[in-house]
Amino acid sequence: MRRALDLLTRSLGVLALVALTFSLVWVLRFAYRILTYESPDDAVHAESKRRYLERLAELETSADRPNVVLILFDDLGYGDLGAYGAESIATPNLDRMAANGLRLENYYSPSPVCTSARAGLLTGRYPERALLNVVAFPTGHPMEWALRAQDAPATRIAAEEILLPEILSAAGFATAMVGKWHLGDRSPSLPLDRGFDSYLGALYSNDMVPFAIYRGEEIEHEAPFDQTRMKKVYEEAAVDFLERDHDRPFFLYFAHNFPHIPLFRPEEDRGRSDAGLYGDVVEGLDDSVGLILDALERRGVLENTIVIATSDNGPWYEGSPGMNRGRKNQTWEGGQRVPFLLHWPARIAPGRESDAPVGGVDLVPTLLSLLDLPMPPDRILDGRDMGDHLFDAAPAQNRFVYYYGMTQGGNGGGLDAVRDARFKYHRRRGVRAGGTERFSANADMGPWLFDLQQDPNESWDVSTRHPDEMARMAAAFEGRVREDEENPRGWR
Amino acid sequence: MRRALDLLTRSLGVLALVALTFSLVWVLRFAYRILTYESPDDAVHAESKRRYLERLAELETSADRPNVVLILFDDLGYGDLGAYGAESIATPNLDRMAANGLRLENYYSPSPVCTSARAGLLTGRYPERALLNVVAFPTGHPMEWALRAQDAPATRIAAEEILLPEILSAAGFATAMVGKWHLGDRSPSLPLDRGFDSYLGALYSNDMVPFAIYRGEEIEHEAPFDQTRMKKVYEEAAVDFLERDHDRPFFLYFAHNFPHIPLFRPEEDRGRSDAGLYGDVVEGLDDSVGLILDALERRGVLENTIVIATSDNGPWYEGSPGMNRGRKNQTWEGGQRVPFLLHWPARIAPGRESDAPVGGVDLVPTLLSLLDLPMPPDRILDGRDMGDHLFDAAPAQNRFVYYYGMTQGGNGGGLDAVRDARFKYHRRRGVRAGGTERFSANADMGPWLFDLQQDPNESWDVSTRHPDEMARMAAAFEGRVREDEENPRGWR
Repeated sequence: MRRALDLLTRSLGVLALVALTFSLVWVLRFAYRILTYESPDDAVHAESKRRYLERLAELETSADRPNVVLILFDDLGYGDLGAYGAESIATPNLDRMAANGLRLENYYSPSPVCTSARAGLLTGRYPERALLNVVAFPTGHPMEWALRAQDAPATRIAAEEILLPEILSAAGFATAMVGKWHLGDRSPSLPLDRGFDSYLGALYSNDMVPFAIYRGEEIEHEAPFDQTRMKKVYEEAAVDFLERDHDRPFFLYFAHNFPHIPLFRPEEDRGRSDAGLYGDVVEGLDDSVGLILDALERRGVLENTIVIATSDNGPWYEGSPGMNRGRKNQTWEGGQRVPFLLHWPARIAPGRESDAPVGGVDLVPTLLSLLDLPMPPDRILDGRDMGDHLFDAAPAQNRFVYYYGMTQGGNGGGLDAVRDARFKYHRRRGVRAGGTERFSANADMGPWLFDLQQDPNESWDVSTRHPDEMARMAAAFEGRVREDEENPRGWR
Repeated sequence: MRRALDLLTRSLGVLALVALTFSLVWVLRFAYRILTYESPDDAVHAESKRRYLERLAELETSADRPNVVLILFDDLGYGDLGAYGAESIATPNLDRMAANGLRLENYYSPSPVCTSARAGLLTGRYPERALLNVVAFPTGHPMEWALRAQDAPATRIAAEEILLPEILSAAGFATAMVGKWHLGDRSPSLPLDRGFDSYLGALYSNDMVPFAIYRGEEIEHEAPFDQTRMKKVYEEAAVDFLERDHDRPFFLYFAHNFPHIPLFRPEEDRGRSDAGLYGDVVEGLDDSVGLILDALERRGVLENTIVIATSDNGPWYEGSPGMNRGRKNQTWEGGQRVPFLLHWPARIAPGRESDAPVGGVDLVPTLLSLLDLPMPPDRILDGRDMGDHLFDAAPAQNRFVYYYGMTQGGNGGGLDAVRDARFKYHRRRGVRAGGTERFSANADMGPWLFDLQQDPNESWDVSTRHPDEMARMAAAFEGRVREDEENPRGWR
C-alpha cells in the first residue's frame, strides 16, 4: 500500500515536472514573442516608395490645383447628421455642405474599426494589405502585448505603405494634421514621419491611457488631457493652419476624436441638443466644421477647396446607424456605411446626391487622378478613380465594395462580405454548417444574399430567389479570397 | 543533484495527487448535480393553485363568453408583417386582422428568448418569477446538462405555476394546443399536464434534436420530422379543432415553430415572396392565419372570438426588427418589441391603433378580468388588466414594462431595463464603470436613458438632458430589483 502510494506520487511528480517544464517554455516563448515583436517593414517596397515620391516631386503641376480638407469623425453613425435624417441633433454646417455639394448614400468606410479604417482611407488599399486589420493600442499597453503575443501582423502602419499626406506633400502641398492619428505611436509611423508638415492631436483613441495631446512629437497638453477642451484646441489648430498665407495648395486632415467615447463637451454646449451628451458633442463637431468653412471663405479659397466630411466606422454604444443593421466592429451595414459629404463649388453643383457604392479606398486613386499624378507602380490600389462620378456627375460604373472583419474580438479577420450596386453577399461566420446528432443543420445561418436596395437592414436572405446573383456574388467573394491568399500585400 | 531532483519530484507528486483528488471531487460534484438535478416544484403553492382552479370551476359563468385563439410566432420580427411596414413580404390575412381590429405599436414580449417569453405570456408573470429565464433544451441534451451543472433554477415550467390554459380549462373552456410548447419535455410540465385537452406539436424549438411531432404524449411523426410538412400538419390540427361542435367557449393556442430557423416551406411556396426563404415561410404563416379566420367565420363564431397574433421575441439571424435596435436574446427594443394584433369584432372597432406600452404579461390578468374570474390569491401577477384600453379604447394608464435578460449566454439574467410611456432606462451591463491606470472611465457606457418616442433605435442617451426623469426611472429600476431580491417568486 505504502509502496503503491510512493510509486504513484513519484510517477505523478515526474509528469508534473514535465508539464511544468512545458508550461515554462510556453510562457517564455510568449514573453520572447512579446519582447521581440516588431511590426514588419519591407525594405524593397520602402525603396520603390522613395523613388515614387521623388518622381512626384519632379512632376510639373498645374496652377489651379484645389486644396483638400479631409474631415474624419470617429464612430459617427449614418443617422447622426441632419443631412442623413437626424431630428434630435442639429448640424447646420454639415447640412450646408450637403446642400451646396454632394451627399453619398452608399459610402463605405474601408473597415468597421478605427485603425484599419484610417489605414484604408489614407492608402487606397483595404487594411489587410497593410496587415493592419486591428485596433492599435499604445506601445506597452497590456492590449498591445496581447496583440504581439497573438502575432498580430502589424500594430502600426508599415514604413513602406504610401499614405495620402506623403503623396500630397511630395506633390507640393502644404500639409497639416489635427486630431486622432491611430496608425502607430512610434517611428516610423508618426504623423511627422508620414508626410505632415505639422501635427497637433492625439496619437490614438480618447479612451486609451495615457491620453495626451502632441504638437509635432512633443507633448503639448499632458495626460490626462481635459477633454472638455478638445473642441477648442482642435478648432484653433485647424483655423490657425487655414489662416496662414500658403503659396501653394494645402491639405488639412482634421480627424476628430469625437464622438468616440468617453464623451465630453465644453460647459456652454451642455444640453444644446435633443440627443443628450452624444448629441451635444456632435453639434459641437458641427460648430468646428462651420469654423473651417468660414476660415476657407474668409481666405477666399472655399470655391476651389475640396472639403470632405465622413466617419471611420459606424456608431458604438451610442450613436445612430440609421436604418442599417449592426454597429461598429461589425461588417453589417451599420458598421461601415457612414455619412460622406463632399463640398467643392468649383466642380460640384449644389444638392447632388448619389446612391452609387463608393468606398473610402477610392479617395487616394480619385485624388491621384484629379491631380494628374501617377499611381505607385509597385502595388495594387484597391480603390477606383471615382472623379467622373463624384465631381462631374457621370454615371458610376458598377463595382464591388469589400467588407473585411477585424482581427481582434474573435472575428479572425479576413473577408466577410462583398456588395455591388444592389446585392450584398455575406459569408457564414462563427456558426455550425452541418447538423449533428444533437444539433440540426442551420442552413439559414448564411452565406446570405441581401438585396440592399429593398433591405438595408439585412433582414432577409434572398439567395433562393436570386440563385444566379448568388452564384455571381459568391464567385466575386471567392475570387477575392484567392487573390488575398496569393498576394496578401498586393505587390505588383 | 540527484537527491534534489528526487525531492522535487516527490513534492510535485504530492501536490499533483492533491490536485487530482480535488479535480475528481469537483467532477463528481458536477456529475452528481447533473444526475440529481430537478426543477423545483413548490408543494404549498401547488396546493393553493389546486384550490384556486377548483374555485374557478365552481363559479357561475355568463353565456356570452368569447372564444380565444392565441397565435404565437417564433422569432418573428417587428418589421416582418405588412401591417408593420414590410414591403417584401405579403401578409394579407394578418393585415386584415389589423384593418378590422387593433394593432399595437408598443407591445413587448415578456422576454427576448423562447422559453421564458412563453412562461411570461402564459403565467402573467415575468419569467424570473417562474425561475425560468432560459432556453430549455431536451432532457439529456448536452446543453441541458450544462444548465443543470450551472444550477439553473429551472429547466421546465414548475408545477405550481398557473398557466392560462389551466385557468381557461378550469373555467369551462374547451382547450387545444397546436405547435411549439417549449416549457419542458417531461411531466409535470407537458401540455396535457397543463390544461390542454388536446395537443399536437413539437415540445421545443425546431433546431433541437430529436425533432418529432407529438399528439398528446405519443409521437405522431417520428424524428427527424420533415419540416416542409409542418405548415400543413399544424393547419390541419388547428382547423380540425375549430370545426368541431363546441358546446362551450374554446381556447386554441396556435404556437408555430416558424420563422425560427431552420426554415422550410412546402414546394408550392417556393419563391412566392420578395424576401427569400424567410419571406416565403412568413407568407405561409399568413396562409395559416387565413385558414383559422376562415374556419371561425364558417362556424359563425368570428364575431365573438378574440384572435391574437404576436411573436415570442424579435428576429434572430434573419427577420426584420424594423426601426428597433438589436435582435433576439437582447433587451434592446428589437429583442422584445414585436407585432401584436387583436381581432374581436364584437368589441373592437376596425383599424384601431395604440402606442401605449403593453406587455405579454398583461394577457392573463386582462383575460381574467374580462371573464370575471378572480386573480390567484397566493401570488403576484406582474401584468395589468388592460381590457379598458385594448377592448374599449379607454386611455391607457401610464405603467412600467420591464426587460429581463436571459440567464444563458453570459448575460447573467436579472433586470436589464424598464420603460414607461416615453423613456427607457437601460442598465450598464458587462462594461467597466471606473477608469484604471490603463483604461479610461467610460461614463458613456450606461446606465442610459433613451427617449423611445424620438429614438426607438436607442441611439442617444438623454440622461443629462432629463435628470429628473433619469432619477425617476432609476428609482423604478432599483425598486424592482429590490422587490425581486426580497420575493423572487412573487408569493403573497
